[in-house]
Amino acid sequence: MKALLTTIGLFAVTWMSAGAADPAVPYPAEYRKWVHVKSTLIGPQHARFASNGGLHHFYANDKALDGYKIGKFPDGSVLVDDLLEIKESEGVSSEGARRRVAVMVKDSARFRETGGWGFEVFKGDESSPALNAEGKTACFTCHSKQKDHDSVYSQFRK
Amino acid sequence: MKALLTTIGLFAVTWMSAGAADPAVPYPAEYRKWVHVKSTLIGPQHARFASNGGLHHFYANDKALDGYKIGKFPDGSVLVDDLLEIKESEGVSSEGARRRVAVMVKDSARFRETGGWGFEVFKGDESSPALNAEGKTACFTCHSKQKDHDSVYSQFRK
Repeated sequence: MKALLTTIGLFAVTWMSAGAADPAVPYPAEYRKWVHVKSTLIGPQHARFASNGGLHHFYANDKALDGYKIGKFPDGSVLVDDLLEIKESEGVSSEGARRRVAVMVKDSARFRETGGWGFEVFKGDESSPALNAEGKTACFTCHSKQKDHDSVYSQFRK
Repeated sequence: MKALLTTIGLFAVTWMSAGAADPAVPYPAEYRKWVHVKSTLIGPQHARFASNGGLHHFYANDKALDGYKIGKFPDGSVLVDDLLEIKESEGVSSEGARRRVAVMVKDSARFRETGGWGFEVFKGDESSPALNAEGKTACFTCHSKQKDHDSVYSQFRK
C-alpha cells in the first residue's frame, strides 16, 4: 500500500510539474470558429485609446454560451476579446492588424484566488503568453467588479 | 401507369405550390451561432450612410466557410450581413438595434439566373422577407462584379 501511495505521489508531482511548465491559460486555438458574442469599438476620443483602442470582438466557447444564459459560467468556459486595429477611409472603417487576444478561462479550483477565472493576453498573432503578474491582478481587479455577472462584462447580443 | 403519373403530377404541383408560397430564401434562424467572418463599420461620412450605415457583421455557415477557402461557394452556402445601428458615447461605439439581416444563399439550379445566388433581406428583427424584385436585381448586379470570388465581396479574416 505504501508503494502504491508513493507511486501515486510521484505521478502527482510529475503532473504538477508539467502543469507548472505549461502556460496557465493556453492560447485558444479554435476561437475564430466560436460564437461571436458582440463587438465594441474604442475610438480615438476614448481616454484609454492608446492601450485599448480598436475593434473588440468577443467570442465564447460552448460552455461560456451557457454562462451567458444563466449569469454563472461553468468550469471550462473560455471567453476571448480579439482586438483589431481599425483603418478608416471615406467613412468605411475596416479591420486591420490584430493588437492582442485577451482570454478568460473558468476553472474554479485552479484559479480560486481570482474568482475562478484565469487571465492571459497574447500579443498580435503570437500564441505565447504575454501577461505578467501585475497585469493579471489588474484584469482580476477590474472584472471582479461585475459581481452580479460572474466577473464578466459582456452580454450576449441576440 | 397513367394513374401513377397523375399521382406524381399532383404531388409535384402540390410541392411546387408550397414552394412558391414559401420565401425563396428563408430566414437564417441559426446564423448567430455561425462563424463570424469579419466586420465593417459604415460611418456618417459615407455617401450611403442613410441606407447602409452601421456595423456590418458577416457570418457564414459551414459550407460557406469552405467557399472562402477555395473562392467558389458550394450549393448550400449561406452568408449573412447582420447590420446594427451604432451608439457612440465618449469614444465608445456600442451595438444598437438591428437594421436588417441580408442573406445570400447558393443554389446553382434554383438561382441559375442570378449566378447561383438567391438574395433576401429581413428588416430589423423580423423574419419575413422584405426584398422586392428590383432589390434582388440590385443585389445581383453589384455582387456579380466580384467575378473572381464567386460574387462574394467579403474575405474571411483570420
